[in-house]
Amino acid sequence: MEPNWNSHFAQRTQRMKGSAIRELLKLTERPEVISFGGGMPAPEIFPVKQVGEACERILANYSDKALQYGTTEGYNPLRQMLVNDAVKNGLSCDLDNIMITSGSQQALDLLGKIFINPGDHILVETPTYLGALQAWNAYECEYYTVKSDEHGMLPDSLEEGLKKNPKFVYVLPNFQNPTGISFTLERRKKVVELADKYGVPIIEDDPYGKLRYEGVDIPTLAQLDSEMRGQSKGQYNGNVIYLSTFSKILAPGIRLAWVIAPPEAISKIAQAKQGADLNTSTFNQLIAYEVGKDGFLDEHVKVIRKVYNERRDVMLDALEEHFPNSIHWTHPDGGLFLWATLPEGNDAAELMKEALKENVAYVPGGSFHPLGGGENTMRLNFSFSNPQTINEGMGRLGRVLKTHLH
Amino acid sequence: MEPNWNSHFAQRTQRMKGSAIRELLKLTERPEVISFGGGMPAPEIFPVKQVGEACERILANYSDKALQYGTTEGYNPLRQMLVNDAVKNGLSCDLDNIMITSGSQQALDLLGKIFINPGDHILVETPTYLGALQAWNAYECEYYTVKSDEHGMLPDSLEEGLKKNPKFVYVLPNFQNPTGISFTLERRKKVVELADKYGVPIIEDDPYGKLRYEGVDIPTLAQLDSEMRGQSKGQYNGNVIYLSTFSKILAPGIRLAWVIAPPEAISKIAQAKQGADLNTSTFNQLIAYEVGKDGFLDEHVKVIRKVYNERRDVMLDALEEHFPNSIHWTHPDGGLFLWATLPEGNDAAELMKEALKENVAYVPGGSFHPLGGGENTMRLNFSFSNPQTINEGMGRLGRVLKTHLH
Repeated sequence: MEPNWNSHFAQRTQRMKGSAIRELLKLTERPEVISFGGGMPAPEIFPVKQVGEACERILANYSDKALQYGTTEGYNPLRQMLVNDAVKNGLSCDLDNIMITSGSQQALDLLGKIFINPGDHILVETPTYLGALQAWNAYECEYYTVKSDEHGMLPDSLEEGLKKNPKFVYVLPNFQNPTGISFTLERRKKVVELADKYGVPIIEDDPYGKLRYEGVDIPTLAQLDSEMRGQSKGQYNGNVIYLSTFSKILAPGIRLAWVIAPPEAISKIAQAKQGADLNTSTFNQLIAYEVGKDGFLDEHVKVIRKVYNERRDVMLDALEEHFPNSIHWTHPDGGLFLWATLPEGNDAAELMKEALKENVAYVPGGSFHPLGGGENTMRLNFSFSNPQTINEGMGRLGRVLKTHLH
Repeated sequence: MEPNWNSHFAQRTQRMKGSAIRELLKLTERPEVISFGGGMPAPEIFPVKQVGEACERILANYSDKALQYGTTEGYNPLRQMLVNDAVKNGLSCDLDNIMITSGSQQALDLLGKIFINPGDHILVETPTYLGALQAWNAYECEYYTVKSDEHGMLPDSLEEGLKKNPKFVYVLPNFQNPTGISFTLERRKKVVELADKYGVPIIEDDPYGKLRYEGVDIPTLAQLDSEMRGQSKGQYNGNVIYLSTFSKILAPGIRLAWVIAPPEAISKIAQAKQGADLNTSTFNQLIAYEVGKDGFLDEHVKVIRKVYNERRDVMLDALEEHFPNSIHWTHPDGGLFLWATLPEGNDAAELMKEALKENVAYVPGGSFHPLGGGENTMRLNFSFSNPQTINEGMGRLGRVLKTHLH
């Protein structure tokens, strides 16, 4: 008989949709399009030489290990390197607190798998990271949203949400994707205190923490939670599951990220990972270790910061110059994105069609809103294109907006 | 308050257990243990030189692509290379039929995600691949089992199972993990015909197809299904989802596998993969392409076959020499494993404790049986250890069995 695949798919697939962003990226692959759509690092500053030297050393000395299966939790020297870095930055933890994942997206998926029963609610910012919504929609969850301002989640709105007993609260306190907004220290402390008060775990997603271009570093929620509990030494046993990644400080093509969490959570995530992909590429883990073990990445992020800082400034200037006065935008202190809000009644998804005619692209903000809304918003990436291209693209986009905005 | 993680975990985690094999591998990491437990390729024949040259070429010419995010479906030249290989081997398909995954384990997980509603039944061989059970248990499925003999699934038992309307039937027709048994051509045709008759999709897992040491290659279920439908050209639109992997023909440390399936299924798997890890390591995909594009892997599998053939023979001889007469074992024509059955009443998991005292290890067969049973069976891997080590280890294991078998 003729196979009828649609009749076989599980219930949950009705909640799974291709990411608007990734579909969009396909449209913007034409070389003449200037895309502010993706969230891609600048390829011209990938540490190609260091990766190459690492590959040589690995294949000369550790090929039997690097090309073989590895343990699910990850390559121990790499885990230890990340523990050392966390401790240096103020979060006390040990090897049982850490595991490697195939990008942070996998961590989000595994967290969905271990936490979410169908119908469970998750407390999120709005807008929030689309990839997290995508990962968790597949586990058939619902969302509560917290109101935010330019300093982060509003404590009253957060507490209201926590009272409804969500499964966890998901926060991106540093240079949030998509808005670029960061939480103040005071707001961070509030999140930690309130989540503790209501017994709701925190998932802290921090891909851009090391990419700050102005202001001073603010402790992570994990650090503040640990301090609140007086855990200044040894293992971390708090209320936060902390995610970070090599994608933005080394390269996304090696698909490497890590989770710092209490051992009970790590152990459960590792069980889920066994079934999901056995282990993250051993070869790539050794690359990250060889590249990072002598502190190279601390130097390399300085280069990244310098390049992205300039690009952010160029984009901010171009916004002033080319965008109509009725549009507002954020001023991120770091990260890869800023966020523009058009006057009510404009539809950024519709405008995108006009933008593509002019060979410029961005991500319409609607899909970052789990409960709808935000049609008049757009996310603009400033890390991928060089200053000249940013200027040219923003000029095009400004013309589109001036013509079609109402 | 004190975080209580156990109270937060989802219902499905009760079905998730760490793999007995991977826990065991940790125990056998002591260098003095000879382990027939894992399913690891021989590291001494990893094509280290070719991987190194590939890395060099990639970083010299394509670093901007290799270290960047990629499309979820995979790197197109690699997909096309795999399409060409499939066509050459008798399965007509095109680019929309294929996608790359982070090892076959990820394909199994994604298939669970797109197909399994809690309570759904899956039809499997018994014993069957433990990793598949692990992946699918997380989606809270149940199992029906099919009886098999040394030629594969018994058609009557298969038909009985198919009548119960399982979500899909999972088959490893070549040198099955764990038993090493292969399906005859006749049995393969029966699987394809009966699954079609009852409208039940087939998942064909074929990690070892190219590792045949005696006899002649037998068409895959995908090929037979395609032939049955008269699809000798162009796109494949049949009833089989076919999985294979670079882990056994190149190296497992790069975590690369592929799925060949009808476009509707590929598209749904890709949606699931977006949420699960965005894309498989671009760098590793380029490595596989650079290593494989000029036909090197066809030459390399000849080396692998020669080495594993010898090791299989050494293990078969050692079984004759060292194992008590009351034990029976399979004679695999390829793959990595053979399967031994002890007299009823013996417990291979208990005997494993004695074996570890003698510094030798295997995998007790019980956990390969989704509905229980098989306590008197064991899986023995012959790919990882060299002939001398196999002899030494089988000698130790023989002594353990002679002492403790009843």
